[in-house]
Amino acid sequence: MKTRHLVILFGLTALAAAPMTMAATSAGVHGANLPLIFLFLGIMLLAARIGALVERIGQPAVLGEILMGVALGAFAFIPVLHDSITGLVAEPFIIGIAEFGAILLLFRTGLESNIREMARVGVVAFFVAVVGVVLPFAGGYFGGQWLMPGLDWKAYLFLGATLTATSVGITARVFSDLGFSAAREAKIVLGAAVIDDVLGLLILAVVSAIAVTGTISLPVIAVLTGKAFGFLAISLVLGALLAPRLGALFSKIHTGVGMKMSLALFFCVAYAYGAAAFAGLAPIVGAFAAGLVLDPVHFRNFAAPRIATRLRGWADRLMGDASLADELKDEATREEYHSIEETFDKIALFFVPVFFVLTGLQVNLAVFADPRIVLIALGITAIAFAGKALCGWAARGDVNKKIIGVGMIPRGEVGLIFANVGRQIGVVNDELFAVTVIVVILSTLLTPPLLSTLIRRRSKAPTATPAVATA
Amino acid sequence: MKTRHLVILFGLTALAAAPMTMAATSAGVHGANLPLIFLFLGIMLLAARIGALVERIGQPAVLGEILMGVALGAFAFIPVLHDSITGLVAEPFIIGIAEFGAILLLFRTGLESNIREMARVGVVAFFVAVVGVVLPFAGGYFGGQWLMPGLDWKAYLFLGATLTATSVGITARVFSDLGFSAAREAKIVLGAAVIDDVLGLLILAVVSAIAVTGTISLPVIAVLTGKAFGFLAISLVLGALLAPRLGALFSKIHTGVGMKMSLALFFCVAYAYGAAAFAGLAPIVGAFAAGLVLDPVHFRNFAAPRIATRLRGWADRLMGDASLADELKDEATREEYHSIEETFDKIALFFVPVFFVLTGLQVNLAVFADPRIVLIALGITAIAFAGKALCGWAARGDVNKKIIGVGMIPRGEVGLIFANVGRQIGVVNDELFAVTVIVVILSTLLTPPLLSTLIRRRSKAPTATPAVATA
Repeated sequence: MKTRHLVILFGLTALAAAPMTMAATSAGVHGANLPLIFLFLGIMLLAARIGALVERIGQPAVLGEILMGVALGAFAFIPVLHDSITGLVAEPFIIGIAEFGAILLLFRTGLESNIREMARVGVVAFFVAVVGVVLPFAGGYFGGQWLMPGLDWKAYLFLGATLTATSVGITARVFSDLGFSAAREAKIVLGAAVIDDVLGLLILAVVSAIAVTGTISLPVIAVLTGKAFGFLAISLVLGALLAPRLGALFSKIHTGVGMKMSLALFFCVAYAYGAAAFAGLAPIVGAFAAGLVLDPVHFRNFAAPRIATRLRGWADRLMGDASLADELKDEATREEYHSIEETFDKIALFFVPVFFVLTGLQVNLAVFADPRIVLIALGITAIAFAGKALCGWAARGDVNKKIIGVGMIPRGEVGLIFANVGRQIGVVNDELFAVTVIVVILSTLLTPPLLSTLIRRRSKAPTATPAVATA
Repeated sequence: MKTRHLVILFGLTALAAAPMTMAATSAGVHGANLPLIFLFLGIMLLAARIGALVERIGQPAVLGEILMGVALGAFAFIPVLHDSITGLVAEPFIIGIAEFGAILLLFRTGLESNIREMARVGVVAFFVAVVGVVLPFAGGYFGGQWLMPGLDWKAYLFLGATLTATSVGITARVFSDLGFSAAREAKIVLGAAVIDDVLGLLILAVVSAIAVTGTISLPVIAVLTGKAFGFLAISLVLGALLAPRLGALFSKIHTGVGMKMSLALFFCVAYAYGAAAFAGLAPIVGAFAAGLVLDPVHFRNFAAPRIATRLRGWADRLMGDASLADELKDEATREEYHSIEETFDKIALFFVPVFFVLTGLQVNLAVFADPRIVLIALGITAIAFAGKALCGWAARGDVNKKIIGVGMIPRGEVGLIFANVGRQIGVVNDELFAVTVIVVILSTLLTPPLLSTLIRRRSKAPTATPAVATA
């Protein structure tokens, strides 16, 4: 409690003092308002940690982080703070940190899976993805006409497109929070999310083209499609070829954690850049692909010298007790295996929460004022939920279809990006935008508890899975 | 080598492809050029690690990082890349990461020292600082008139002011690279650097006021002075009172590394903000003060549960061997002691190098074209070196006066900030600005090797210190 009060009190005074800093800026000292931005970042990080305490009541940390973000956003209603907060939320530095967090999260998620496993779920994931794109798109297009009639037909196209792309970030985070990332369901959802991200971005590109030109241009669609699938194919094949050589290269490096860390990060951002620059995909897709390619096994010789050598030292001293010596040696090896993920987690611990706090902060609570909008939004949300939840049934084999379906529900940054594009083109009006925002919020807020409940029930009664699936 | 080529090749192609990304941006996808910025960040991090290999030839890593920055900057001469690179170097996200690195570095430096130790060197540090401000200011004012006559008298005032502030970042980094941070000389230099940063920023404020108004306004000067010293006094006293309660609070927290990390970071950015917003000081001064207040001892119970408990487990299993059990227990405790600094270093490992690579990148190599400017710059640099080197003689007691003097030489971001302010006011012309840049570069590049040589000589022959001091 004390901590929370500390944060809020300081936050208030500090943000209220923002004008002073701005004055300092006008005084001409380069980047003089950076201190305020850093302070805001500090508040976000602390808020994230406080929000993460929901883990104690069995909720995934990500939910608490988003809610703390929403709570911080509420301070924008205080006149003195409004400008500072709205300004800070739009700061390139803050947005950059958050987006980098999303990229690290997807890279990390990719590292936990690997291509062979992905291929094993490839077909299932593909079916799940296609159904999970077709249903919400149709639902959005027709449901939109039914719930909010009188809009331009292109607006309904956009609404449909907005509902297609799963924001794998939330789901990935819930899975990793609950240690479920290795499960087959997780692999299917993540695979499907990547595929439907590709499909969704294709639909966006196509719909935008239609909205701008007013007609459908086949060549454009063909090029967009080719680039998207081309990137994934090339990057995965290239990666599969490159990975062993990289592994050899990495194992040759003995200049400590830093060098391998930088190489891994470089690989990650290079893929993220490639996805965006050469295929027009979301950078997180590239980061995920990089993680897929860069199996942790390639970091086997990743240096954790201090711990490893110390443990080895004891092992030698203890040769008398062979069993313990072995245990310590295993320990030392495990340390090496884990060291990249540990180092990564330390850095991710800094960046990832910012993404989710910012997601909460970007919620404009004012849209809840108009009850009509809220009712329409609830209707669209129901469609969005149903569209994805049903796609779980496209999954075959002994898997929990519910977990897959629910895991596909979250809409996040991608959905908001779609809505933004539509708004910029002039097809999506403020009401439709508000609706999209609410859908994203609800799908983001309701999925984690729903998903963790399902996962817990499954892990409690694994034999009951088929029953649950057909329930 | 392979790695370096990899980076450069990829960097070239990627940066050359930048236009594509920009096109994507114009397509309206929010933050679509972030991937390029992230890629650039990845290149900077990898370049920093490669530069850090100079440690193998006994040079501090910071020198290699700055030089790699200069090398990356050279790519700006390639027409295709020029716009991308100059644009990326000015990106708020990149600058933010670098500045945050500087803050983390000074916070870390502050953590290593503590108030009582600072007070012990306070008087000496104060004399060193005053002499180290007066000499370069006078040198800049009169030397400037001699070397580049015909400028406005206010221009010489600015040149003098530009030479006053030591960029403690470089020195702090060299000290920590060589494990010299605990030495009395290091404490004096860091203390003096903080004081002369305060004095320097006062002089800047005063000189700016004079340059703008054309006259000297005593009230303004009084207010500025009061605010600056007020902040330091209040923050240190407040911190001294707060620290124990914080320690108690921290020791109550058992929610893992994240929470304490966030609290520490919050404390750091809060002080950095306070320095800038309420006292018009450089945020790094606030970060350093925060580190001073937040002695590592307050993180004694900082959780490193995984390692600590495992080691405890073995200790119990081994009670037969008391000595080893104790050793393991000590090990577990040490782990706890170290854990905050480890976690910090992992995060610092990410941010700090970016600051130094960017410093190198910001060097506009074009200024070296005009030999006249270079000659003048060398003259001013000589004055800048002498002015600070001599202030070491103001230090009393059995300390190495040379290390202190040379440790005060580096001019960095603060000097460049001063030059920028003068340029914005219209007092500093392009030639004078170029000169300042060169002085900053040379003082930054030449100090680390000079300093590390002196430190090595001293640590080799500690008894010879007085001899060296009077040499």
